[in-house]
Amino acid sequence: MKSIKEKWIVTIHELQDKICHALEQCDGKSKFEENSWERFGGGGGKTRVISNGHVFEKGGVNTSVVYGNVSDIMRKELEIDGDKWFACGLSLVIHPENPFVPTVHCNYRMFELYNNKDEVTDRWFGGGTDLTPYYLIEEDAFHFHQTYKNVCDRFDPDLYPIFKKECDNYFVNEHRNKERRGIGGIFYDHQKPTESKDVDFWLNFSKSCGNALIKAYIPIVEKRKNALFTESHKHWQEIRRGRYVEFNLLHDRGTIFGLKTNGRTESILMSLPPTVRFEYNYQPKVGSEEEKLLQVCLQPKEWI
Amino acid sequence: MKSIKEKWIVTIHELQDKICHALEQCDGKSKFEENSWERFGGGGGKTRVISNGHVFEKGGVNTSVVYGNVSDIMRKELEIDGDKWFACGLSLVIHPENPFVPTVHCNYRMFELYNNKDEVTDRWFGGGTDLTPYYLIEEDAFHFHQTYKNVCDRFDPDLYPIFKKECDNYFVNEHRNKERRGIGGIFYDHQKPTESKDVDFWLNFSKSCGNALIKAYIPIVEKRKNALFTESHKHWQEIRRGRYVEFNLLHDRGTIFGLKTNGRTESILMSLPPTVRFEYNYQPKVGSEEEKLLQVCLQPKEWI
Repeated sequence: MKSIKEKWIVTIHELQDKICHALEQCDGKSKFEENSWERFGGGGGKTRVISNGHVFEKGGVNTSVVYGNVSDIMRKELEIDGDKWFACGLSLVIHPENPFVPTVHCNYRMFELYNNKDEVTDRWFGGGTDLTPYYLIEEDAFHFHQTYKNVCDRFDPDLYPIFKKECDNYFVNEHRNKERRGIGGIFYDHQKPTESKDVDFWLNFSKSCGNALIKAYIPIVEKRKNALFTESHKHWQEIRRGRYVEFNLLHDRGTIFGLKTNGRTESILMSLPPTVRFEYNYQPKVGSEEEKLLQVCLQPKEWI
Repeated sequence: MKSIKEKWIVTIHELQDKICHALEQCDGKSKFEENSWERFGGGGGKTRVISNGHVFEKGGVNTSVVYGNVSDIMRKELEIDGDKWFACGLSLVIHPENPFVPTVHCNYRMFELYNNKDEVTDRWFGGGTDLTPYYLIEEDAFHFHQTYKNVCDRFDPDLYPIFKKECDNYFVNEHRNKERRGIGGIFYDHQKPTESKDVDFWLNFSKSCGNALIKAYIPIVEKRKNALFTESHKHWQEIRRGRYVEFNLLHDRGTIFGLKTNGRTESILMSLPPTVRFEYNYQPKVGSEEEKLLQVCLQPKEWI
């Protein structure tokens, strides 16, 4: 019988294949290119990158299966107690060319800790999917949140409201008056097996959330990918992409921790948007579509 | 008689005027626009920004005079011991349009600490100027370093080699195999008055270094501002600007501390370049001019 770890490794690789296939179909031009890499200290990953597509200007769908001895920096920064660790996850960021197609990000991962007899002493799951539109199209926002609510509700109706809120509280540019990166989705971390929610519960929940990416995102892309846009729409997209960069490099725990602990830089930073603008004190016009998006980032909405 | 603090405040504002004037003359089209701001808790600043010039695509020359009570975060992160603090400095970043004109950055500041009787208990100076070319033109690199060596040597011939090395060791993208942001210059921090180098020494040294910006930078701009460039040169400039963003948001102590302690976000982030590109695993061609620049960032050179 397969261990939890082995089941999860299979899951994320199947997910990587499925998602890449769906995105390629939707793009119609570019294909993902794969770079396999090995980690000094144990494990490695498969980075798959798409660029200059009809639809997707830049994107990555990465998996990694890594392990090693618990280091001082992990003990300190992650407050981890144990001798060896194992982590395995899928991480995705897609930056479309068209400003009416939102950027999407997801990450689903599990973590295990072992004592010096190689026995599992701790185990948790984390993950989430969040949407970053450049223009707020309410039916798209609703569809995205509804899809994830449906997945959560199949497991436990209490989950969506909690994980929706955690998402709103995580993707925050604190230095910009708590402006959110986008319109959220779901986010959960350190979910350890309990009596009512055992390890299979979290494995299956994470798997279902990962699978739902296609249903949550592709229909939005299909609806908007041929929308006409002007230079001014593109300009605004690049301004907002600047906020994406600020969040990822200043606040995102995964990015900062990965870079500090000798993660593979190019795989971690594939999340950064392809073209970006930083203008001094740029403010959208009051009452404009750009300002409407900004407002919903400043005050997250209950979509359902 | 003016206090040290008052002398320094006059110095940085004269410097701000002089530098802005010289840059406007050199640009020939755009003028700096000034935003004055006040800091919640004490003091404020004058942010001067230039954009869309003939020569300068985006730039800021900022001064700030700020003070307050020593907070817990300052005690912890800056290891500061005292009741009140005062800081005053000039900070400049200039991003030219033409990829053959380097970006320049400088920062000159002083810091004072007081006990609960408002007596000065500690005081130090810090500063530096560094150059970030997109193409390595050796005579420009030499001119820049020679100018700062000359200034240093007038004060003490030991200073340039030390501060040149500190600069090479500060502007480092640790997550990119210790790639430097550019070709350096000088950098010094926490310079406290000693018997041989009193407070006037450091004030005059900082003033002279600040003044030297014009002599170190403007001749390079004049020589290169009309150089012909192609889309491919611009592309490389935007890739390198991406490294500038990475350094400033991931590693620069001033930026991160400023944003964490409620500094004025727009003034701090005026340092970010106007247009930027992030491409997955971009590598310049072996033997190209782009690779030559990269190599000198990986292995800093002794210019003099």
